Amino acid sequence: MSLRVIVSLAVAVMLAVSTGAAGATEPAAHKPRARDLGVPFDGTPGPLNAITDIDGVLVGHTTLIAGDGKLVVGQGPIRTGVTAVLPRGSASMQRFSFAGWYSQNGNGEMTGTTWVEESGFLESPVLITNTHSVGVVRDAVIAWRVAHGPPDATDSWWSLPVVAETWDGWLNDINGFHVKPEHVFHALDSAHGGPVEEGAVGGGTGMICNGFKGGIGTSSRRLSDKDGGYTVGVLVQCNYGVRRNLLIAGIPVGREIESEDPYAFVPADLAERGSIIVVVATNAPLLPHQLKRIARRVSLGLGRTGSIAGNGSGDIFIAFSTANAAASDLGHVVDLRMLPNDSMDPLFAATVQATEEAIVNAMVAATDMTGIDGHHVRALPHDELRAVLAKYQRLVR
Amino acid sequence: MSLRVIVSLAVAVMLAVSTGAAGATEPAAHKPRARDLGVPFDGTPGPLNAITDIDGVLVGHTTLIAGDGKLVVGQGPIRTGVTAVLPRGSASMQRFSFAGWYSQNGNGEMTGTTWVEESGFLESPVLITNTHSVGVVRDAVIAWRVAHGPPDATDSWWSLPVVAETWDGWLNDINGFHVKPEHVFHALDSAHGGPVEEGAVGGGTGMICNGFKGGIGTSSRRLSDKDGGYTVGVLVQCNYGVRRNLLIAGIPVGREIESEDPYAFVPADLAERGSIIVVVATNAPLLPHQLKRIARRVSLGLGRTGSIAGNGSGDIFIAFSTANAAASDLGHVVDLRMLPNDSMDPLFAATVQATEEAIVNAMVAATDMTGIDGHHVRALPHDELRAVLAKYQRLVR
Amino acid sequence: MSLRVIVSLAVAVMLAVSTGAAGATEPAAHKPRARDLGVPFDGTPGPLNAITDIDGVLVGHTTLIAGDGKLVVGQGPIRTGVTAVLPRGSASMQRFSFAGWYSQNGNGEMTGTTWVEESGFLESPVLITNTHSVGVVRDAVIAWRVAHGPPDATDSWWSLPVVAETWDGWLNDINGFHVKPEHVFHALDSAHGGPVEEGAVGGGTGMICNGFKGGIGTSSRRLSDKDGGYTVGVLVQCNYGVRRNLLIAGIPVGREIESEDPYAFVPADLAERGSIIVVVATNAPLLPHQLKRIARRVSLGLGRTGSIAGNGSGDIFIAFSTANAAASDLGHVVDLRMLPNDSMDPLFAATVQATEEAIVNAMVAATDMTGIDGHHVRALPHDELRAVLAKYQRLVR
Amino acid sequence: MSLRVIVSLAVAVMLAVSTGAAGATEPAAHKPRARDLGVPFDGTPGPLNAITDIDGVLVGHTTLIAGDGKLVVGQGPIRTGVTAVLPRGSASMQRFSFAGWYSQNGNGEMTGTTWVEESGFLESPVLITNTHSVGVVRDAVIAWRVAHGPPDATDSWWSLPVVAETWDGWLNDINGFHVKPEHVFHALDSAHGGPVEEGAVGGGTGMICNGFKGGIGTSSRRLSDKDGGYTVGVLVQCNYGVRRNLLIAGIPVGREIESEDPYAFVPADLAERGSIIVVVATNAPLLPHQLKRIARRVSLGLGRTGSIAGNGSGDIFIAFSTANAAASDLGHVVDLRMLPNDSMDPLFAATVQATEEAIVNAMVAATDMTGIDGHHVRALPHDELRAVLAKYQRLVR
Repeated sequence: MSLRVIVSLAVAVMLAVSTGAAGATEPAAHKPRARDLGVPFDGTPGPLNAITDIDGVLVGHTTLIAGDGKLVVGQGPIRTGVTAVLPRGSASMQRFSFAGWYSQNGNGEMTGTTWVEESGFLESPVLITNTHSVGVVRDAVIAWRVAHGPPDATDSWWSLPVVAETWDGWLNDINGFHVKPEHVFHALDSAHGGPVEEGAVGGGTGMICNGFKGGIGTSSRRLSDKDGGYTVGVLVQCNYGVRRNLLIAGIPVGREIESEDPYAFVPADLAERGSIIVVVATNAPLLPHQLKRIARRVSLGLGRTGSIAGNGSGDIFIAFSTANAAASDLGHVVDLRMLPNDSMDPLFAATVQATEEAIVNAMVAATDMTGIDGHHVRALPHDELRAVLAKYQRLVR
Repeated sequence: MSLRVIVSLAVAVMLAVSTGAAGATEPAAHKPRARDLGVPFDGTPGPLNAITDIDGVLVGHTTLIAGDGKLVVGQGPIRTGVTAVLPRGSASMQRFSFAGWYSQNGNGEMTGTTWVEESGFLESPVLITNTHSVGVVRDAVIAWRVAHGPPDATDSWWSLPVVAETWDGWLNDINGFHVKPEHVFHALDSAHGGPVEEGAVGGGTGMICNGFKGGIGTSSRRLSDKDGGYTVGVLVQCNYGVRRNLLIAGIPVGREIESEDPYAFVPADLAERGSIIVVVATNAPLLPHQLKRIARRVSLGLGRTGSIAGNGSGDIFIAFSTANAAASDLGHVVDLRMLPNDSMDPLFAATVQATEEAIVNAMVAATDMTGIDGHHVRALPHDELRAVLAKYQRLVR
Repeated sequence: MSLRVIVSLAVAVMLAVSTGAAGATEPAAHKPRARDLGVPFDGTPGPLNAITDIDGVLVGHTTLIAGDGKLVVGQGPIRTGVTAVLPRGSASMQRFSFAGWYSQNGNGEMTGTTWVEESGFLESPVLITNTHSVGVVRDAVIAWRVAHGPPDATDSWWSLPVVAETWDGWLNDINGFHVKPEHVFHALDSAHGGPVEEGAVGGGTGMICNGFKGGIGTSSRRLSDKDGGYTVGVLVQCNYGVRRNLLIAGIPVGREIESEDPYAFVPADLAERGSIIVVVATNAPLLPHQLKRIARRVSLGLGRTGSIAGNGSGDIFIAFSTANAAASDLGHVVDLRMLPNDSMDPLFAATVQATEEAIVNAMVAATDMTGIDGHHVRALPHDELRAVLAKYQRLVR
Repeated sequence: MSLRVIVSLAVAVMLAVSTGAAGATEPAAHKPRARDLGVPFDGTPGPLNAITDIDGVLVGHTTLIAGDGKLVVGQGPIRTGVTAVLPRGSASMQRFSFAGWYSQNGNGEMTGTTWVEESGFLESPVLITNTHSVGVVRDAVIAWRVAHGPPDATDSWWSLPVVAETWDGWLNDINGFHVKPEHVFHALDSAHGGPVEEGAVGGGTGMICNGFKGGIGTSSRRLSDKDGGYTVGVLVQCNYGVRRNLLIAGIPVGREIESEDPYAFVPADLAERGSIIVVVATNAPLLPHQLKRIARRVSLGLGRTGSIAGNGSGDIFIAFSTANAAASDLGHVVDLRMLPNDSMDPLFAATVQATEEAIVNAMVAATDMTGIDGHHVRALPHDELRAVLAKYQRLVR
């Protein structure tokens, strides 16, 4: 398989995905999500139970699946991709968003965070891909901005994009560097509102989570009107954890279904090489330091799933607010709005809850996958999950 | 009640506690702890299931309980105290310990952390008291060191003690400033190994946790020999959370027993003013940056109990290692040992597990308390807890 | 000298200082400051060239000087004190200020910073004292607030005061704990606008800086109208450094006057035990993360004086903004104003410049002092300073 | 000029540079450095006065200069490059180095820092390039490691390279993305000990510093035997600052030669878009948290040159130690050595001093350059610098 062929395949897949994404609004409704299976969660989701419940937030995927069999570095098999989250739709390039980030365990990369921390702004979309493709994705975001941006091409303000990763080398030819700039452009150009495709798509294509097939998941919470009526949305690319630690709805699901083990391929230490990238969006008017507080609550949601944030895991989170659309205006003092710290508890709870649900959604949406060298990873079996929950009186009927 | 009388009372109480502490080895064995009730936890505890399973770690309490009825600021009622954790027994003043800290939510105080972060060393015992007595405790630690220390009284290296707090103003006359230097000296002088008294003792005397009576709790984990055989011990002063969020063993215990509500006194917003201070000790040879990693895992244990780290909560954690006893030697390059990062996962798991258990231990050990203005806080009822766990098939028999 | 006598003396001194503070407005005008001597500085100061150029900022000192001769711990000699900076005058207890902090070298204490970092607010005055009196000052600030505050004495929001320190044990009986609550009350109650008394006053009484007598210094910069017309004020309690590193106006002043050494008393290692606390105030509408940026610029000002931020130095800085007076309102979304990041450079320059000048002002204002055991520290000699600057063509005439 | 031609040109330049690098040992000796001109600096440099005075540290450059005249994005003119710093020579891929980092102003990128902070290790060379080429350089480092590494190509431990940048868009076609993987390989493969080429080379090719031509500079300090005899080496890619703030040896050199202004091309705001990346190496046995302390001292050196760390500047520093070569061994507890904190002051002073000198060296080594659209930047004129220093009695003869 020549590089040319790979690219063709990739483009083919990409187009297929593109179509899929365009039509995702409907099929997604038919695919059961975690709460459809009866998994109990706290709090009230937004209409889509997705990060796209925050007005203006768009999500796009490029999914790259090609080849089978033995790994030939540079040729495949390919099981990877790119996911893009745009904070403000088509205005994402002109109006920046207040943001904060946190690393629960820094065995990973999220570029651009030094400027997020310093400036308080997220000045780019958030891209997620595999570990060894962060660089190509980062520069491609700049190229995309140059192509779409204002005429002054020397302008440097788009220069520090936020690009994160998790490692898919158990299923994907990660050292083949199969993500190309056009895949980044596609994820950005095809980003859309509405339902978000979950599971083994986009950057999540080749991921493994808690010993089962992982990938992209999302969820949201809508606060009561009394609490301001704000929405919090979470999107995860989940690739972390080992099965023995997995909790769902507080139940040790990972241990309950351990007896039948289809994952003999995955050495224990490789399993811990995973990571989780979490993107939190809200329309609540929060300042940068408050968004850092939100990002830190992701850890509490992870705790509920049994995570220990293993040494090999890059558990890195970013939170942004779509409020204060004029915050990045230059040349004059800007007017802002801020939610008092004392009113943040419902947002904290929402973040914890939506993180937990997004992770389970990612696992529920994923399906079995075979990658390089015949490595096979089974998806979380829906019926077994339901049986375990029922055993513990935790199944919602 | 004059100040003089209060002090007398306090000393009386102090002496009583002192006796209690001395004899604590035995009675503690008769008081059921969480796992005695059948609460399931992961991992293997050390012999005492306490922070004192780490050799050299001593714990001392001064418990101040005096007066009843209406609050008269400066007179009482008094429901407060001081807890001291000594990292290296009698050598704590000569040999410092590598340490790291983390604030999950910084609505609290832990003095001395700026130097812990900079130097990598914990150079004092860790003291815990009420919010408004941090100052008197801090200076008293210095006075105690001056009294016990080497002859050069101008030496400044003992000057930045670590003193933390949680707020007990719902039960205690916190603005009466009833903690005095002698109470600090007592906690330090009476610190001992062996079983640790839990519940409404020491700094935890007047605390409320997840809507029930809180206080001091502890737990430990011993790693397998394969993983190095190290021990991790946790001590908490727990005062955080609201009942509706409480999870025990993954079960929404807080909601299950909400129907019978004896806590009408506690306004929702006051309930969120709580906090949790967590001290993690280990004998694993970890460097300062690795101990910070340990401190960050406490959040994952908190997540398992349903915490959202509310805005009003000071959730501040410190971790230290008793290994590398010569690390603080001056005047020459010192020899150290370090556990590789890749071997830390069992320690991470132990921290998460022991944090969860220490919190439940604190709640299980506490008993009902009535404080200022007749404010009454009920302890977690053991039988109801067991009934809820049984309902969800989570009771260990 | 009994404790009772000490207290009497202290009160006597306090009253004397109180009188001095009341009349400080005038004499301060006659005492030469650094630029009066011809030291060149960049930028344009405000009318007072003091932190009090920011409207609402008040400064109060309690200076404790008593006894002479041999050190008897607990009796003296006493050379210490307390300095208070109130951000918003009489409204400091009702309206909090956005703030950020930074530790260039954390061998020191600044309580309350964990909450400053989390909340973005400075919720108390900033107090500065000696290292071993931080605790008494901290609790006294709470007591003062309880005495002055609203009727709800259980309110906990005043519980985490910001109190910092530097070490005066070369001149002062630091382990005698001579700072008492009433000294804190006096510093707070006597805080005033207008000229700020500099040199060996307040918390700076017993300090040593760059091998000369140190203490309190202040300076300010007013931005051009084009740059917004904002003011930046700096107050330092300076106690850091060794003479050989001292630069003034870029000239190695410390080395130039080293030949005549009156400081044989000060061992090299003690000289490095100093520290510097820096308080930066501005009326520019900056958010918490922007104020952290301001705090980090203090290091650049220190760099200009030759500091290496020695291991024994606690170089801790806090910056706050008096703009956005309604930022801490509760119960509703608040309106704020923010200066864009791109407009901050003049504020950065002002911070660097005012820090440098405040340090030199502290040294210029100090006079010779003899403390415990006859330890004598000479002040920076004005004539020699001028001679050195003239030699290097740096004297402004 | 087609892309193909550009690449050819680039390779041609690269080879030329390669040759230059090979022969750099000699010509570098003839090119005057700052102290050759009589600029006074504190401290004692190592034999090379370069970061390569630390045994094992290698530096390689790829310099890309091609084309002239009007900017055609994608074609040129090209004025950019890549600089590589290898911590441990040929063992850099097998043995990691303890490291710490700090961002004085985060308007820049340094990938890999999240893992440096978490793990305490620098696990890759440090690469420096232009802002828009960070991605390609990052992925190329991985590819280079895969090509050179052990057979297990799925190994993920090389996945988070450290790549930093400063912005050269005033002279270079930065949006043309002219840096290619082969340029990265060349910088890595040609890295060498001995004298380091300074000025407009490697990543520093198109840089501007304090209003003059900037680029790469280096310096070192060797501690006295009494202080351990350790060496500290600094390498900067300097691109920050405005001329009016420039201090050299404490003298306002930038203002003194402002009258003759050949920089009318450079708008004030663009001048502030610069940055400075600083790499500090030492053979002192420092732990990660101590190396962070070293990194923070770079700010004090910057302060001495008049920097205000402007909003547009990415002032990001990384420090590593070549001691403890076995620190990254896996599978067993490792033995380490640590210099006590109390012995670090000479290293702090060395870092401040070498940073200051490396910056001046970069400016002294640079020569005039004309880039895109005829933008011309003059180098710091040696004779005028000497004249100004002489005027202020600061010229060393």
